[in-house]
Amino acid sequence: MSFKINLSAWQRRKTEFWNRLWEDLEIGYLDEDLIGILLILNSDKNIYTLSSCSGRITISDSTYPWSREESSVVFKKHIPITINEILDILKKPVVRRLWLNSTGPILHLSTNSLEYADKILSLARKAGLKHSGIISMNPDKGYIIELTSGVKVSHLLRSRGILLAEEDSLREIVDVANEVLLEGKKVLIRMFKVFRSELPWNPDNNIVSDLKNRGINIDKYDPYKIYGKIIRLDNT
Amino acid sequence: MSFKINLSAWQRRKTEFWNRLWEDLEIGYLDEDLIGILLILNSDKNIYTLSSCSGRITISDSTYPWSREESSVVFKKHIPITINEILDILKKPVVRRLWLNSTGPILHLSTNSLEYADKILSLARKAGLKHSGIISMNPDKGYIIELTSGVKVSHLLRSRGILLAEEDSLREIVDVANEVLLEGKKVLIRMFKVFRSELPWNPDNNIVSDLKNRGINIDKYDPYKIYGKIIRLDNT
Repeated sequence: MSFKINLSAWQRRKTEFWNRLWEDLEIGYLDEDLIGILLILNSDKNIYTLSSCSGRITISDSTYPWSREESSVVFKKHIPITINEILDILKKPVVRRLWLNSTGPILHLSTNSLEYADKILSLARKAGLKHSGIISMNPDKGYIIELTSGVKVSHLLRSRGILLAEEDSLREIVDVANEVLLEGKKVLIRMFKVFRSELPWNPDNNIVSDLKNRGINIDKYDPYKIYGKIIRLDNT
Repeated sequence: MSFKINLSAWQRRKTEFWNRLWEDLEIGYLDEDLIGILLILNSDKNIYTLSSCSGRITISDSTYPWSREESSVVFKKHIPITINEILDILKKPVVRRLWLNSTGPILHLSTNSLEYADKILSLARKAGLKHSGIISMNPDKGYIIELTSGVKVSHLLRSRGILLAEEDSLREIVDVANEVLLEGKKVLIRMFKVFRSELPWNPDNNIVSDLKNRGINIDKYDPYKIYGKIIRLDNT
């Protein structure tokens, strides 16, 4: 197969997602620490970004942490949590099981060539996103890439009637969940650094002038500016 | 880029990995429940398999479950565990943190064309391996694909001096870890079923006659025969 991308359909999707990104940003729906990375990626004319998450702590009431059906997220935060927030949730009744999940960043993007997809995967590995891959390919949508690291824990807090976290241990679990969240933010910082120094390979003039018109300075969105003070960065 | 695979180098690697597979099998190094799936994949002339794991429960002494450096696996099993096995481990001193990890199957394979890689990814999604992707591409090695599901939990058992699992809760944690392991085995069964009905698209005559000479019947290795009796298969 020589896989042929429909470039005009692909470009239409890029424009759509770019507009949606600004809507999300305006209503505060976008994680602030991801904005810089998304702007860098989109400023290359052969890349657009889809959904993304900068890393978060959730509590889900579900049989398994990965369950989608019959599952409800009862708590979600993109910044460190406190023990009191968790204690409040533990007082409420549980339908299935209560899982505390702390996960690193996950990004989806599309490229319009295999060569680009390959280059992005190399960059991702360089930034420490070791579980990245091309998850699908489609003539209109492009080569869809998921960028992700292995940063993730899922700790069982309550199962049926059994509470698995008394207050003492809960304090430790909350500390570790916060630590894991910050490990994810380190990945984000490395990603910004690597992408900022290498991209764009081919500037997208529409995006570049759009950013200029909006008075956007990408470096303002370096996640290091948000997290640099609270985490040690030995490995970055 | 029209990405060009060096077919003779690729074929040499297929032969190498095929020989290694039989060595692993003979020394009992290969998970029995994976053999069928590996044989099906290799019996297509455009596919070879690399490393794989059929799903397992591990306990690691490490800062994080994903840590590689400064980490040691103190327990590993591919079948359900008992609480006594865990109690024994909890008696021993811990250097970092003790994590109980239960994970589903993970397979690595290579194809010699993008078309094939795309077809494999479609099959994988059909089998419920939702986190699969092309993780790298190389003229000699081919398109390297990782097949994996989201089946995974990492539960903190002990952190510094603090034991987070008293005997009562430990019993529940062991039950859930075993349940998660069997969820992974369900993925394995679905994978065998889907791959068996669709592959090979292009039979590899060398492999097919090798299997014949060895008197191998692939259906003997259906993981359903191992696990069908102990797990409910509502969704398969």
